[in-house]
Amino acid sequence: MLTTRFTDTLGIEHPVVLAPMDFVAGARLAVAVSAAGGLGLIGGGYGDEQWLQDQFAAAAGTRVGCGFITWSLARRPALLDIALAHQPAAMMLSFGDPTPFANQVRAAGVPLICQVHTLDQARQALDAGADVVVAQGGEAGGHGVGTRSTFTLVPDVANLIADRSPGTLLLGAGGVVDGRGLAAALVLGADGVLVGTRFWATEEAVVSGGAHARAMAAGGDDTVRTRVYDIVRQYDWPAEYDGRLLRNRFIDRWHGRESALDAQLPEAAAEFRAGASEEDYDVAGVIVGEGVGRIGEIPPAGEVVRRMVQDAAARLGR
Amino acid sequence: MLTTRFTDTLGIEHPVVLAPMDFVAGARLAVAVSAAGGLGLIGGGYGDEQWLQDQFAAAAGTRVGCGFITWSLARRPALLDIALAHQPAAMMLSFGDPTPFANQVRAAGVPLICQVHTLDQARQALDAGADVVVAQGGEAGGHGVGTRSTFTLVPDVANLIADRSPGTLLLGAGGVVDGRGLAAALVLGADGVLVGTRFWATEEAVVSGGAHARAMAAGGDDTVRTRVYDIVRQYDWPAEYDGRLLRNRFIDRWHGRESALDAQLPEAAAEFRAGASEEDYDVAGVIVGEGVGRIGEIPPAGEVVRRMVQDAAARLGR
Repeated sequence: MLTTRFTDTLGIEHPVVLAPMDFVAGARLAVAVSAAGGLGLIGGGYGDEQWLQDQFAAAAGTRVGCGFITWSLARRPALLDIALAHQPAAMMLSFGDPTPFANQVRAAGVPLICQVHTLDQARQALDAGADVVVAQGGEAGGHGVGTRSTFTLVPDVANLIADRSPGTLLLGAGGVVDGRGLAAALVLGADGVLVGTRFWATEEAVVSGGAHARAMAAGGDDTVRTRVYDIVRQYDWPAEYDGRLLRNRFIDRWHGRESALDAQLPEAAAEFRAGASEEDYDVAGVIVGEGVGRIGEIPPAGEVVRRMVQDAAARLGR
Repeated sequence: MLTTRFTDTLGIEHPVVLAPMDFVAGARLAVAVSAAGGLGLIGGGYGDEQWLQDQFAAAAGTRVGCGFITWSLARRPALLDIALAHQPAAMMLSFGDPTPFANQVRAAGVPLICQVHTLDQARQALDAGADVVVAQGGEAGGHGVGTRSTFTLVPDVANLIADRSPGTLLLGAGGVVDGRGLAAALVLGADGVLVGTRFWATEEAVVSGGAHARAMAAGGDDTVRTRVYDIVRQYDWPAEYDGRLLRNRFIDRWHGRESALDAQLPEAAAEFRAGASEEDYDVAGVIVGEGVGRIGEIPPAGEVVRRMVQDAAARLGR
């Protein structure tokens, strides 16, 4: 119905890919998206070997891929061996230079998907030999470089690919939560979409009911890009990255006051940990993107794929 | 070819509106856009009575509209009387609460266009009785609230309008520089687009050759949202607004160091004024949006309208 170069190359039905959200995108969610005709990617994230083995085992029999946080993978490169041993449908690398891992992925016969947030990063991904580039705008939930947006980054990267590497495929990401978003990404020059928030808000996502309830009550103006949670978690994200999530009391207190947060880090980190363990979302983070205002229910992921594709096809007159 | 509710209501051929960029969008540019079948809006900006009278006189015989900066208009409300006396095709109000002026505009029988940057502002515009809402993402060049982006704001406002005021029309803005952008905005739920940067880069725009040359050499990663120029110009923009423009030496020195800039304001302001008068764009501002990377030439504005519409129609299969 909406076949593209991407669906042809990957051998799938719909040009809709699950973002490999760490821990949220476990085997159950990845399998549900692949079973519905999209492509599920297990969220390898920062890298937890046992969790990763468990997810691949649980997904056995369904064609799914996997994604890693590249700067974190560089510290534990053996995780890539483990993932590639399962012959994933694709390997996605985000947040960092993919070059050191590219040859290994391609030597394994696995399509390499590289996520980029700027044109400079897109050039690096093409140089590394990416089979698929994900152009993700700052609308997206979670980490990224927030300086570019989906509406302009997708056509800019489409032009770059047309000039430099016309066989490379392009996925649009950031703010794609419905058929309008899928249709718009295709019109802007993408061959498909990578979807986070909309799959985060499904039955199969590893997300608490409390976090889902917060997201369903939120509007599109209620998210913010911030470094606050990386500071309190003492994660070593490169300086150009921050992350988008729902505003809450904790963020409103510290966002824009990062120096003060550094000075009171032990107390703030303890408050954050307590909030996270108690699922108190005035303190803990609800990691969703700018499209959250159009999330009104928690359906099965397969239903999300079907509705998104049907609506996009109708809007494009196919 | 791409008729919509907007073209039907305004009685124009193409759903493409010239953003009323102050001083840049004079009579010549507004007339060129209207003559090509779009809708030209004279850039009333902060408000200069003589300039405004001159532009309306020069545009006589062509149906054009006008736009003002609302918080500035509130200080010189007589400018609205002058503009309405010319029976403009539409009156656009941006950057501030339109409510105090809405009745006067509609009593004059002139369609009221309200530009918004957030859902909260969209609700205010509907409450004020806007005939047309412009949902402008932070991709846009010039002033705005940079917290939302075109890709998610347009469908969010489309849903709000469908719920609360289905007869109100919607234009998408921010990053629309070609047929892909027009087609995507329509697919996202808009009835047309408002275009700034792409018309800024035309023969009829009041822009120096030096500024045009900078823009043509720039890529999509080269713009930034900042308050630096409003600080050095000592303009009273409300706190939630900043503006997007090309990065240069002056911005790189002061952006993120606004407190230091305040402390050295007389010297920095003098440097800025000198740079502006000398057309030195290492110092002076080149006000363009994130779509600037796809600006490669300075055609006539009518050519921009025709290409944009033809390409969008082809992408949408019309």
